[in-house]
Amino acid sequence: MKFNYKVIINVLGLLILLNGAFMMTCVPFSLYFETDDLFPILVSSLTTMFIGFVTFVATRQNTSKELKKKDGYLIVTLGWLSMSLFGTLPYILSGSIDNFTDAFFETISGFTTTGATILTDIEAVDQGVLMWRSLTQWIGGMGIIVLAVAILPLLGIGGMQLFVAEAPGITPDKLKPRITETAKRLWFIYVGLTFTELCLLWIGGMTFYDALNHALTTMATGGFSTKNASVAHYQSPFIQYVIILFMFLAGTNFTMTYFGLHGKFKTVFRNEEFKFYLITTLLLTILIGFNVHLHYGEEWETSFRDSLFQVVSIITTTGYVTADYSLWPSNTVMIIFVAMFLGASAGSTAGGVKIVRHVILIKNSILELKRQLHPSAIIPVRLNKKAVHRDITFNILAFIMIYIAIFATGSVIMTWIGVDFLTALGSVATSLGNIGPGLGDVGPVDNFSQIPLAGKWFLSFLMLLGRLELFTVLILLTPYFWKKV
Amino acid sequence: MKFNYKVIINVLGLLILLNGAFMMTCVPFSLYFETDDLFPILVSSLTTMFIGFVTFVATRQNTSKELKKKDGYLIVTLGWLSMSLFGTLPYILSGSIDNFTDAFFETISGFTTTGATILTDIEAVDQGVLMWRSLTQWIGGMGIIVLAVAILPLLGIGGMQLFVAEAPGITPDKLKPRITETAKRLWFIYVGLTFTELCLLWIGGMTFYDALNHALTTMATGGFSTKNASVAHYQSPFIQYVIILFMFLAGTNFTMTYFGLHGKFKTVFRNEEFKFYLITTLLLTILIGFNVHLHYGEEWETSFRDSLFQVVSIITTTGYVTADYSLWPSNTVMIIFVAMFLGASAGSTAGGVKIVRHVILIKNSILELKRQLHPSAIIPVRLNKKAVHRDITFNILAFIMIYIAIFATGSVIMTWIGVDFLTALGSVATSLGNIGPGLGDVGPVDNFSQIPLAGKWFLSFLMLLGRLELFTVLILLTPYFWKKV
Repeated sequence: MKFNYKVIINVLGLLILLNGAFMMTCVPFSLYFETDDLFPILVSSLTTMFIGFVTFVATRQNTSKELKKKDGYLIVTLGWLSMSLFGTLPYILSGSIDNFTDAFFETISGFTTTGATILTDIEAVDQGVLMWRSLTQWIGGMGIIVLAVAILPLLGIGGMQLFVAEAPGITPDKLKPRITETAKRLWFIYVGLTFTELCLLWIGGMTFYDALNHALTTMATGGFSTKNASVAHYQSPFIQYVIILFMFLAGTNFTMTYFGLHGKFKTVFRNEEFKFYLITTLLLTILIGFNVHLHYGEEWETSFRDSLFQVVSIITTTGYVTADYSLWPSNTVMIIFVAMFLGASAGSTAGGVKIVRHVILIKNSILELKRQLHPSAIIPVRLNKKAVHRDITFNILAFIMIYIAIFATGSVIMTWIGVDFLTALGSVATSLGNIGPGLGDVGPVDNFSQIPLAGKWFLSFLMLLGRLELFTVLILLTPYFWKKV
Repeated sequence: MKFNYKVIINVLGLLILLNGAFMMTCVPFSLYFETDDLFPILVSSLTTMFIGFVTFVATRQNTSKELKKKDGYLIVTLGWLSMSLFGTLPYILSGSIDNFTDAFFETISGFTTTGATILTDIEAVDQGVLMWRSLTQWIGGMGIIVLAVAILPLLGIGGMQLFVAEAPGITPDKLKPRITETAKRLWFIYVGLTFTELCLLWIGGMTFYDALNHALTTMATGGFSTKNASVAHYQSPFIQYVIILFMFLAGTNFTMTYFGLHGKFKTVFRNEEFKFYLITTLLLTILIGFNVHLHYGEEWETSFRDSLFQVVSIITTTGYVTADYSLWPSNTVMIIFVAMFLGASAGSTAGGVKIVRHVILIKNSILELKRQLHPSAIIPVRLNKKAVHRDITFNILAFIMIYIAIFATGSVIMTWIGVDFLTALGSVATSLGNIGPGLGDVGPVDNFSQIPLAGKWFLSFLMLLGRLELFTVLILLTPYFWKKV
């Protein structure tokens, strides 16, 4: 046997069991609000836990076997898929979503922290189910942190081994043994920040329930809201600034936040990715802010808050909305569209290409010009003053190229499925980048309910692809992955 | 002195002299058609030749000095620029174009074989000037062949050394001495094909003048037409098929055409770029053809001819039009848009990314997945059964990335200059790819006259950038190019 199927299934069983346990935490909200979704959620949770438990126990005896690299790929992709599969139960059993395609789209949009929704009236959904919807994103974000610092670097995906080199307690040669410790520290930050945001939003005037939901989906850079109008529902500048701050933090490399919390601000501000992240955000905000101000003649503060909110929301791939950017002047729309390809920091919960890859790309492009003049010289890219191994640079270039190739072919496929030019570009960019809102028919004030059936499945696939850094999923589609050695 | 400025200026003088001599060949047409542009063209030609001659003679004594690599970069870019500068004279002196910006746009669009035009009524322009307009493209195409087989490989640009390895008489280790011989052979093919097309179009019912103009601009994959409606003016299927055939040939690697003419069809059909070129063309034609047929219910032959013409015209970056593709269904428009990034074969007169780079990109992407599983193995990309050196693959990836980065930032810049979203995407893609027509306001039946002034200069820059394979121009913008060693 080539794969350790038993171990793989064992891990999946554990994940499903945990998934069911998380569902149970929605029960108090159904009880408190006395909604009709109490029984459906109980059944969903118990069913999921039961299946997970049986699977886990039935395959337990083999856990002493070592996992191989190939097993890792299978676990990651199948893990996300099985979570999304069982995650549909609360929607379906409660009748909040009346067909499997839509329920699956909504769930995988949650677990991949995308935030694209097919719900046309969110406020009509029962509070227990809505809590589950927000929770899928928070769980997804938690999963991403483990992936980013522990699993992907070991699998050698997209240069991720590079991005964790600075994680607290991690040195490249001692990556493995300290990983559990690191993951725990970062989760602690994740939970701590969620709690802090919850308190601030509550103080700012949100109900406890809404504050909790928004805190969960902010920290996951997910963007599901409990309101139809998204964050635009809350006109309080305080609330909007709090959400901006926490979106930005959620898009910051968690190891940088760790350093920041320990007062090592020098390390943070010397980090090249963080500098680019900060500068890009401010630059785009100023550009768009001026433009919006000139166009609408609002107060300066309002224009810049709207601009800052939308820029941070798109770059961090959160996808909350306080203004309909699709109605802004076309030069602003173009910037928003291009920003969809940025992604925030690696090692955060943000999706997309990630800024550090762009930094390597830009540096390498400039160096390539230098290499033209000195073809025999070996000129490596340097990040944070350290030379980046050529294999990693190569891998990052390949990653970005594949990302763009998938975007281009995906856009063609979406037009063949039957959406217009702009909607195709927007829906593919936003799904692959795990953002949420797109352009055209899936713009910031629209939703994905009108996308044809095939389109919903295709976009679901793109969300998974983007969330798992492309390679993890694509490698399963190659014949040599399955070939016996 | 670091650069051999005298030698550089000497070569530029020669180019300008030749440019003036070419202008003179338009005189017979002014005489024959008895148009008012006779005197302006004579003055343009004599002025250009005089300045070129004086420059050439004044700097002649130093020609014994060897040219260095850096001098090569300067000559290529300045050569194209100075040709475009003097090439504006016939337009300006004849009054066909009333301002310098438009005249420069039209001329550089010619010499870069782009084919984007600011003329709103082409048929109102005198025949002598129109002949000059077509000639700029043909001269540009001639220049590209020299660049592709002789200059760029020596400068190490964008993997071009790889694409000429199969050129007749060229072996990688003996590249330099045989290059003049090779360039001559390929020019012979260029001239021969132009003449053959001229005869066929004349037989097909075009006037000699129109046949000559279209033959000149087809072989250059330029796309300037003497008719306002472009090739749509000629409804004869024979004429359209002849143009399709010669566009396809102009987009074929000229060394493949050389082998083909010598009966070595095996070599041609074993060449991976040619196979991809042929298959891509047919595949897109069938996809679009079916779609257009279903949509408009025309004759099958008409639908497929329209589809084939537009596909070949875009892929080869010619830019002739027989149907307004912007009115076709959105799934077709998306394919046309993506096809703008293909480009035909390297070593042809076509612009854009070039198919061979896409082939390397696709192969490397698939191999990168394999490398994930076997990180220590060295797995090179293979082209035509030979391993491609990693430096070249690296260079090609960097090329494509820079191409896309310029496209993205260029689109943002165009919207800030003041065009809409779709026009920005279309105008940048078509200028950078040296195609001609774009999308939106610069669609296939429109022209570039309404683009704001700054936009015309920016697009002119993009045309030059795309035509000279990016690196040649970009390297001049880096500080270390000008730094003293």
